[in-house]
Amino acid sequence: MAAAAPPPAPTPAPEPATSLPETTPLFTRIRLATLADVPHIHKLIHQMAVFERLTHLFSATESSLAATLFSPTAQPFHSFTLFLLEASPKPFAVSSVDSNPFFTPITKYVNLSIPIEDPERETFKTTDDVTVVGFVLFFPNYSTFLGKPGFYVEDLFVRECYRRKGFGRMLLSAVAKQAVKMEYGRVEWVVLDWNVNAIKFYEEMGADLLNEWRICRLTGEALQAYGGAD
Amino acid sequence: MAAAAPPPAPTPAPEPATSLPETTPLFTRIRLATLADVPHIHKLIHQMAVFERLTHLFSATESSLAATLFSPTAQPFHSFTLFLLEASPKPFAVSSVDSNPFFTPITKYVNLSIPIEDPERETFKTTDDVTVVGFVLFFPNYSTFLGKPGFYVEDLFVRECYRRKGFGRMLLSAVAKQAVKMEYGRVEWVVLDWNVNAIKFYEEMGADLLNEWRICRLTGEALQAYGGAD
Repeated sequence: MAAAAPPPAPTPAPEPATSLPETTPLFTRIRLATLADVPHIHKLIHQMAVFERLTHLFSATESSLAATLFSPTAQPFHSFTLFLLEASPKPFAVSSVDSNPFFTPITKYVNLSIPIEDPERETFKTTDDVTVVGFVLFFPNYSTFLGKPGFYVEDLFVRECYRRKGFGRMLLSAVAKQAVKMEYGRVEWVVLDWNVNAIKFYEEMGADLLNEWRICRLTGEALQAYGGAD
Repeated sequence: MAAAAPPPAPTPAPEPATSLPETTPLFTRIRLATLADVPHIHKLIHQMAVFERLTHLFSATESSLAATLFSPTAQPFHSFTLFLLEASPKPFAVSSVDSNPFFTPITKYVNLSIPIEDPERETFKTTDDVTVVGFVLFFPNYSTFLGKPGFYVEDLFVRECYRRKGFGRMLLSAVAKQAVKMEYGRVEWVVLDWNVNAIKFYEEMGADLLNEWRICRLTGEALQAYGGAD
């Protein structure tokens, strides 16, 4: 639903199905999501709803995500855009995603002192070695005062066993990099006012909190009524 | 900058240049803005900055607005979209805007008990009889929980002498109608927490206030620094 990083410390999963050996390096890659990623994206969004205790608001299906996020006419960065973060114990081979005309994947080596035990590796693997770690969904917004677009980050999510290792920051940084590259004026998102750890993290990275503004939302029957009235 | 309706009662303008006779009916039209409207749009945004006492943040130019709001590849409602509200003492003639493939203008007759004195009619006229009254700028946003888009209303502005007559509501209603037509899930905007009249107005129309959420903004040098960092 909204930017959820950095989350509180997770309880370790009780029965890890797979664990990476302590000496295995971890390689990461941020790339544009494609239609083939929809099943993983749907599961990630559901996990986010569980984390935010908002499953009663969750009604997205694989087909609704496929139809609305991957419309054939929509161009990345000019419409809804989704970066996936993947991890692998081996370096990423050069693949078809590297020749994407809109975005060259960002690869990085992460030095972890404690190996990650991923109980859901099978569910989230994209190839034998590669596992989906998290995502960020963003789209252009507009500032009339600046007379230029920016990016709004709707969701930032990292799977539980990968949290508190800088992966959320990597995803947000990739969005900021893209904004700078496109000469966009701002990157914006929202945070819950009681999430003091997240607010501290955002302020330390240089973000301003617009404390006076409140979000108004017209939805459901109220939207139908208002949108149907004269 | 952000939704500014309904504003507090304006002080009447001291020297009206033109006044409509009391018996003149007022006809209104909401239509998609075009590149030719940029000079009027720029003046409206500047008036909004003055109203919000934020002229120090105003750096938009006619050319930046033209380049970013009217990109040849952008399709109305799928990117940044601007509705203009115009008024005329005469009914609107059928014109080329009525055959716009994306949006059929909404025309309406308004019965005013007190005539409007418009000191800036010359500045804001589009033809001899037609004057620009205000605008709404909006664009798609996305809810991963719903798995569908919505609209975010970035700006809603009505010129001072036209306020408190339901014109802001007409513009917002046009956005809600379009959302319903496109089966979008939500219409959202922001309001200042001290603007109790606006909050009351929005709550009466059925909108929810998301009181716990705060907007975070990364801009200027902080964005450059973060977007350039690893």
